[in-house]
Amino acid sequence: MSNFGAHSLRLVNPYAVAFREARSAVGASELLKKAEEFNTVADAVPDCSLIVGTTAVRSRVLHHPLHRLNQRSARVIHKQLQTGRVALLFGSEKIGLTNEDFSHCHWLLNVPTHDDHISMNLGQAVAVCLYELARNSAPKSEKPPVELATAEVNEQIARALLEALHRSGYVKPGTDAVCEKKVRRLILRLNLEGMDAKVLLGMARQIVWKLRQADGN
Amino acid sequence: MSNFGAHSLRLVNPYAVAFREARSAVGASELLKKAEEFNTVADAVPDCSLIVGTTAVRSRVLHHPLHRLNQRSARVIHKQLQTGRVALLFGSEKIGLTNEDFSHCHWLLNVPTHDDHISMNLGQAVAVCLYELARNSAPKSEKPPVELATAEVNEQIARALLEALHRSGYVKPGTDAVCEKKVRRLILRLNLEGMDAKVLLGMARQIVWKLRQADGN
Repeated sequence: MSNFGAHSLRLVNPYAVAFREARSAVGASELLKKAEEFNTVADAVPDCSLIVGTTAVRSRVLHHPLHRLNQRSARVIHKQLQTGRVALLFGSEKIGLTNEDFSHCHWLLNVPTHDDHISMNLGQAVAVCLYELARNSAPKSEKPPVELATAEVNEQIARALLEALHRSGYVKPGTDAVCEKKVRRLILRLNLEGMDAKVLLGMARQIVWKLRQADGN
Repeated sequence: MSNFGAHSLRLVNPYAVAFREARSAVGASELLKKAEEFNTVADAVPDCSLIVGTTAVRSRVLHHPLHRLNQRSARVIHKQLQTGRVALLFGSEKIGLTNEDFSHCHWLLNVPTHDDHISMNLGQAVAVCLYELARNSAPKSEKPPVELATAEVNEQIARALLEALHRSGYVKPGTDAVCEKKVRRLILRLNLEGMDAKVLLGMARQIVWKLRQADGN
């Protein structure tokens, strides 16, 4: 919840032992410490202007409009959040929300899952729903463009690599011209960033220096 | 994972007791039973052509391109999935991925969270990432995707280049580990196509062969 900016946790009839242990534990989050307990769904959501129930079931004879979790349903919730509180209701992991719980909901929300495994872990279902909601409220950020290597540096790398290939016997006699083009195309296909190109050139030149030494020239 | 259609779980040095208990438990999922154990990241991902590391950190001095989890980054992953395997790497909940782990990654992925709580529960982080990927699973077809080099070939290139750099005196004494990570990152940033990778590996090995001769071993 706190990962995605949801700060108000309300529990309806939580398993008392587990809940009290969790909230009194060393390092318990503020969110958990401030969590409130209620006896009924109605008691928990009186100040909310939109109540959305979550369900793994898609085909059940639901008396409610059913929306898939996506950008559109997230937008509906966001619109509502501009003027009031929205409650997102999650059931227990074993049985989910009951029809009684559903009756408090304006509509139902389903996380799209694979057909062979529709039931989600509760914490993961919460995370996924809140991620989708947070996602649609976040501004889009553009990454700064990357400076690519100049043709000059690319050519220097190609030449150093070619010399190393000649000196190590990789280039077969009579294939010089073919090999040169091949190496140049290869280097260009790498779309080297400027910094990487400089590092690679340094490496190639050092290797060429060593090969020249070995050849005695 | 099974909610969102991911079926292959690979663990690097899992906490043995917990892992064995989980997989042998009554009702353990097929996915968990089929999960594989490895000693190193390199051993776990040799057949993958894109390795994406996940991180909660946005401001750390990262040596990798960092993408936010969103439609765009999901599309990049989907495109790659058309021709090869993609590994999504998650670190332990306490410390996340290490720099050594990162050095095996092509780029890093960050789940956008609120600034006051950026660290996520591991299972929730996995669920959110896979939800976003499943959501975008219908790719728009553009130009046919290119088959990228597998992690295995990239690692072989990195090793050959490292040997050449050692033998030519490029690697300064005491900088072995730093240099190894640097070279691996450099190779991954190239996003080598499968064919190019094979050509480069052949070149590198020939050069190494010549350098070994020169060194008399």
